[in-house]
Amino acid sequence: MSAITDVTSLRDALRAFCAARQWQPFHTPKNLSMALIKEAAEIVEHFQWTTAEESQALTPEKKAAVADEIADVLMYLVQLADVLDIDPLAAAREKIVKNARKYPVTEPTPKGHS
Amino acid sequence: MSAITDVTSLRDALRAFCAARQWQPFHTPKNLSMALIKEAAEIVEHFQWTTAEESQALTPEKKAAVADEIADVLMYLVQLADVLDIDPLAAAREKIVKNARKYPVTEPTPKGHS
Amino acid sequence: MSAITDVTSLRDALRAFCAARQWQPFHTPKNLSMALIKEAAEIVEHFQWTTAEESQALTPEKKAAVADEIADVLMYLVQLADVLDIDPLAAAREKIVKNARKYPVTEPTPKGHS
Amino acid sequence: MSAITDVTSLRDALRAFCAARQWQPFHTPKNLSMALIKEAAEIVEHFQWTTAEESQALTPEKKAAVADEIADVLMYLVQLADVLDIDPLAAAREKIVKNARKYPVTEPTPKGHS
Repeated sequence: MSAITDVTSLRDALRAFCAARQWQPFHTPKNLSMALIKEAAEIVEHFQWTTAEESQALTPEKKAAVADEIADVLMYLVQLADVLDIDPLAAAREKIVKNARKYPVTEPTPKGHS
Repeated sequence: MSAITDVTSLRDALRAFCAARQWQPFHTPKNLSMALIKEAAEIVEHFQWTTAEESQALTPEKKAAVADEIADVLMYLVQLADVLDIDPLAAAREKIVKNARKYPVTEPTPKGHS
Repeated sequence: MSAITDVTSLRDALRAFCAARQWQPFHTPKNLSMALIKEAAEIVEHFQWTTAEESQALTPEKKAAVADEIADVLMYLVQLADVLDIDPLAAAREKIVKNARKYPVTEPTPKGHS
Repeated sequence: MSAITDVTSLRDALRAFCAARQWQPFHTPKNLSMALIKEAAEIVEHFQWTTAEESQALTPEKKAAVADEIADVLMYLVQLADVLDIDPLAAAREKIVKNARKYPVTEPTPKGHS
């Protein structure tokens, strides 16, 4: 496996990983969206009973566990984007432009964005 | 805003975006995990009544809408990782190594990974 | 529609509602699980930027909006249980017995149940 | 614990269960919404790699596991409604009336309700 240094090389590594295991038939957008939200929920679980402050001061063990879940979400997100032929960084660029219009800086913005 | 070409420049753009709107107090890990899963659910919503096949053949409009949600998930994920001082690509690298051990290629792997 | 006074009459009302609209083919367990989590996320969205205190002091409008989402989750949950021939109240009874064993009262229980 | 035969007696049993363990301080609406979606994701996980058909033909073991997760979702939903002083069955009644107006029977309704 070549080095994973960005979203593109991560995508390629995941393609190879799935191909070697013949997982592609399972990796429909529908199924990947389910796997994605399951992993997002594992992040939520780490914070469900914590205060805001506790969520900002994780032990090294907890931090490593959350990093593991963040990796899972990123990996399913990249795979979902891949099967749909979507460039996630390009999508983010466009979304930031939209958000800048939706939440202009000049006025105080009450937090309520979705 | 400088060009967003990778996860690091996306992180920096989001930092600047939030700082300009004074959103940092809201961006605790706990809150960001909630925003993240809300956006993941918006992806799920696009596929909830579709067949596997339909989920693979989106109209251009639908594809653009899903790209928009993928952007939202990526952006909250990058922000969550940032406030926790986690490198998401490094986490993905480590996770792929773990997964390669968990799902060796030599034997047929029934899909059931979490 | 006869009066909805309990989980059973709610289930029956939802059966009639779906039958009248020929929605049953869409209501597979897989699809209903997706619809369920989408509605759960709409509850989460109401609380994602609030403090714990704010989440306990909703305006009447906000409370009505959350009630609406709670209804959606309950309705999809009842429908999911129905298509799987699961009695949700019986399942809850069994789960409380299990939880009582898992979290005995005699010792102080640090909150961390899943 | 008295018999759990409906949503009200389930609510009362859960109140007693939490009080005995001094869990009430953790059970803010915000936290309960997170616990709720985590459990909804455990249902999703059971179906993420299955076909629609497979999701309708669970083994007894799998069915019991899903029933367990359905119980968790129901229990957190009832607790969330309780701390917000919302009657979930009343909310469902109102929502069905709304939905009947939104999706009238007379015309064919393409499935796309949220």
